Amino acid sequence: MSKLRCHISISLDGFVAGPNQSEQNPLGEGGERLHDWVVPLAAWREGHGKQGGEVNESARIVEEVRENIGAAVMGRNMFGPIGGGAWGDEQWTGWWGDNPPYHYPVFVVTHHSRASVEMAGGTTYHFVTEGIESALEQAKEAAGGKDVMLWGGGQIAQQYLAAGLLDELELHIVPVLLGDGSRLFGNLGNTEVRLEQLRAVGAPGVTHLKYRVVT
Amino acid sequence: MSKLRCHISISLDGFVAGPNQSEQNPLGEGGERLHDWVVPLAAWREGHGKQGGEVNESARIVEEVRENIGAAVMGRNMFGPIGGGAWGDEQWTGWWGDNPPYHYPVFVVTHHSRASVEMAGGTTYHFVTEGIESALEQAKEAAGGKDVMLWGGGQIAQQYLAAGLLDELELHIVPVLLGDGSRLFGNLGNTEVRLEQLRAVGAPGVTHLKYRVVT
Repeated sequence: MSKLRCHISISLDGFVAGPNQSEQNPLGEGGERLHDWVVPLAAWREGHGKQGGEVNESARIVEEVRENIGAAVMGRNMFGPIGGGAWGDEQWTGWWGDNPPYHYPVFVVTHHSRASVEMAGGTTYHFVTEGIESALEQAKEAAGGKDVMLWGGGQIAQQYLAAGLLDELELHIVPVLLGDGSRLFGNLGNTEVRLEQLRAVGAPGVTHLKYRVVT
Repeated sequence: MSKLRCHISISLDGFVAGPNQSEQNPLGEGGERLHDWVVPLAAWREGHGKQGGEVNESARIVEEVRENIGAAVMGRNMFGPIGGGAWGDEQWTGWWGDNPPYHYPVFVVTHHSRASVEMAGGTTYHFVTEGIESALEQAKEAAGGKDVMLWGGGQIAQQYLAAGLLDELELHIVPVLLGDGSRLFGNLGNTEVRLEQLRAVGAPGVTHLKYRVVT
């Protein structure tokens, strides 16, 4: 059965982005440190068309994350500026250039309707204004039996978690204390979310913790 | 050199105790779930004078925690009711009975002075009113070259962390979302705390993450 999977880097004190996120600094103050573990990896560089890089215990995690994915869902803050204003315009096609590293349909949840945009390499951006359930439905349909990756950011990950729609959550726990910012688990309200720990892998500068969301 | 070490169970959303802590419920609502991983262990039961129990990857962690400890520091909320009022009286000698599972001097940081209390099995409770630095100094002196264990709770752990006095922090990360309660990293203010990940061990219902505090 097609699963909705999410993996996200998180500081030891629970933040998926630092304080004062802005167009200039989408990860917030100090937030770029959340990705220090992944950027030097050969497995990550290869996915972004670069050669060389480090190989360590994180390599198979990065590879696994890419396996068996047929489509993705993404929040509008992660995609970038949609709908004009300081955050951008209709010409914006994501942070990832003309040939994005997805290579499958990506459903962006937003309040602003917009025509789909076909990129090079198999990535098509679709813009969904009917909410997270509709986005997931459309993504599962497009995935053709494979899994759907929830790429984040933190807000939409929290919404899917609270709605009981997430099947698997992998956290990359980074030994950093951001002190403030956007919490992954900060706004679940009275929702009872039960997690079952599936796996823990320690690697340089990060620990990968994989959970099944029990429904 | 004698180190100050701390290990503490923490929910995946960062709480070391649930909401509404009280005399009847010192761990707060849902807080007892933080210890579900340790209570069934043979290694834990043995330390508390009980036989039998489970053996898994957590066993060596529990054993390691006990190794090379010559004294301990503890907050008054962990020790229990001190100084009268609803929280207790001068007769109180901790939650752990006549033969506590420490077997070394324990320095309780409190605002209420009180004579030391010698328990069976080598545990002596000393009450320190001169603050956390003095308690650590006295504990290191008493430890005779061995390490000092900071037993918690969360508030005093945070104080030692913010003061740059903690050398090693081991978190037992439990796949539970408490939603509210006492945060370990909630009140560090502008203190820059840098951590270096030493080890990650996955075990049933918990992941053990050990960090060196870089000063």
